[in-house]
Amino acid sequence: MAKRASESDIGLLLITGRGNVEYLTGFRGPAVLLIEEGGLKLIVPRLEYERALDECASGEVIAYLPYNLPLPPSKHLFKGKLKDLLLKELKGHRGKVGLIGKFDFTLIRGLAGVLKGVEVVDANPLITELRSVKEPWEIELIEEATRVAESALVKVLDRVKEGVREYEIAAELIYEIRRRGAQPSFEPIIASGRNSSFPHAIPGDKTLKSGEWLVIDVGARLKGYCSDMTRTLVVGGLDGSKRRLMELVLEAQDSAVERLKSGSLASEVDGAARSVIEREGLGRYFIHSLGHGIGLEVHEEPLLAPDSDKRLKENMVVTIEPGIYLKEGGVRIEDMFVVREGGCERLTSLERIIL
Amino acid sequence: MAKRASESDIGLLLITGRGNVEYLTGFRGPAVLLIEEGGLKLIVPRLEYERALDECASGEVIAYLPYNLPLPPSKHLFKGKLKDLLLKELKGHRGKVGLIGKFDFTLIRGLAGVLKGVEVVDANPLITELRSVKEPWEIELIEEATRVAESALVKVLDRVKEGVREYEIAAELIYEIRRRGAQPSFEPIIASGRNSSFPHAIPGDKTLKSGEWLVIDVGARLKGYCSDMTRTLVVGGLDGSKRRLMELVLEAQDSAVERLKSGSLASEVDGAARSVIEREGLGRYFIHSLGHGIGLEVHEEPLLAPDSDKRLKENMVVTIEPGIYLKEGGVRIEDMFVVREGGCERLTSLERIIL
Repeated sequence: MAKRASESDIGLLLITGRGNVEYLTGFRGPAVLLIEEGGLKLIVPRLEYERALDECASGEVIAYLPYNLPLPPSKHLFKGKLKDLLLKELKGHRGKVGLIGKFDFTLIRGLAGVLKGVEVVDANPLITELRSVKEPWEIELIEEATRVAESALVKVLDRVKEGVREYEIAAELIYEIRRRGAQPSFEPIIASGRNSSFPHAIPGDKTLKSGEWLVIDVGARLKGYCSDMTRTLVVGGLDGSKRRLMELVLEAQDSAVERLKSGSLASEVDGAARSVIEREGLGRYFIHSLGHGIGLEVHEEPLLAPDSDKRLKENMVVTIEPGIYLKEGGVRIEDMFVVREGGCERLTSLERIIL
Repeated sequence: MAKRASESDIGLLLITGRGNVEYLTGFRGPAVLLIEEGGLKLIVPRLEYERALDECASGEVIAYLPYNLPLPPSKHLFKGKLKDLLLKELKGHRGKVGLIGKFDFTLIRGLAGVLKGVEVVDANPLITELRSVKEPWEIELIEEATRVAESALVKVLDRVKEGVREYEIAAELIYEIRRRGAQPSFEPIIASGRNSSFPHAIPGDKTLKSGEWLVIDVGARLKGYCSDMTRTLVVGGLDGSKRRLMELVLEAQDSAVERLKSGSLASEVDGAARSVIEREGLGRYFIHSLGHGIGLEVHEEPLLAPDSDKRLKENMVVTIEPGIYLKEGGVRIEDMFVVREGGCERLTSLERIIL
């Protein structure tokens, strides 16, 4: 990371964001990272110090205690606020400073005061690029996380019937994921009837009714790495009229998958799915981008969207999830893929149509 | 909110943060709020537009679609990025602008470009003050969320025995919370043995062993509002030598509770607990602040910390959670309280010592 930064002429990186911190250090918690040619400093609140020492794979750990309480003398313990510690570390720094992640306004203003005359730049691209291409061991973990979500979902499908509440399905699904030693990678979406027309519905106390669409969007996180998949079914079983909409979504997915390979433009892949849906005059009901990268976070680079000029690279892991959201209900099918040379590999193995 | 802002001479507020957005609009999702004397604008991604219209209690909803796709002509639909929409809305604005929440660096820099000569200030205190004092209906929801977490925990206590894994306890606990129509308000802490010496341990695959400390920190979120509580027990039952440490923590809590009333300084309440632990020479093992406000977010104002000069007000809801973290294990007891005139009311009803 320091090498990449210095190639961009950045002498010092200031990094926030749990995914970034976990990627670069292994520590799972609130922290700020400072990276220079000289090394890496992981900055955590006092109460996380011992755990950070345990989890942080390399570099130095510094803890701050923002209260006037006694601290054992140590160059790794700082009495004061995070902001003051950062300003102290940055003071006198010469050369470009890169910021990665989100910062609050007072911190940015404080930095501006300390870094007078120093150029501050957005360095997010440095890490998103690095994180978007996965190592083989990362793909393995993502695959394991996929298996967990799939087996949990299969277990819960028996529970899907008229009269059950959305949140009850969510409770069972999460229980099955956690029993397997994983966590949900996001709050699952269990959206029935009209709720399924909202891509990011929140499971509520609505009861399922026969003949309604039911969207189940779920993922697991295992050893940090996430999976993400969506199946849409019809409560009581898929019938003829609904089957056509479902098949259109599947065709859109297939069309995108055909274009998914290293060297393709992200926008091309999105367009391949979108044009199938547009052909049937339903383009205005596909109201989101086609997919996204996934790894330590559920949503990361690359985004597969109409305007994205990103070129896909080998070993990126992405979702392909076309959807059509009509007023009375929505359909979305989402699978995960590894981008390969000349094609791709589907990580999700669960059948796409659930009868 | 607009009234409060204009009292501080702020003509326009730009607000992020899920808790803030939910507090001011009822919408649960990613959004940015603009508030001026003229009214409130809730800005959401296109895919959240219909749900936002459903959930947003007042004001105008505007959706942005950052891709070059057809959009029905409407003054509520904007084609472009969030940043561009915000810059458009802010362009030409005169008078002080207040920022609430976290922003990324490019947005702040973009704002600086558009708002030349306009004073930009940190307006976080405006909303944290408002949110920290609860309405009676908010206290009722917090109380309901407390009952959910308590009954879930009671249900799961039978499962606590040698050989069970930490994550299995977490899975059961979360299942019991969700079965009751709530969600966990944070990832529960199930930390046994040495793990319990980390205040924010993550449940892992460690199995419980007889005679070890076990810290269980759990909360539920019901209709947006959170609860938070911690119980520490000993696997196989509390014995004599461990009972002394436990009783010291309880005494520290009692001492804080005696000072907890409207008009007290937050630092006084923290100090009351801390001095009990310091008296036994264990002050350096109490490595965090005493407690925090709670509401739509688990951690909100006021913070009960050694240096806090905040004065407590009637109807603030706070946790009181002293802890002692020795190398071999930690003890923490956490309950929730409503600050009242002349005293406080304990919301948590579960017994503090679990044998």
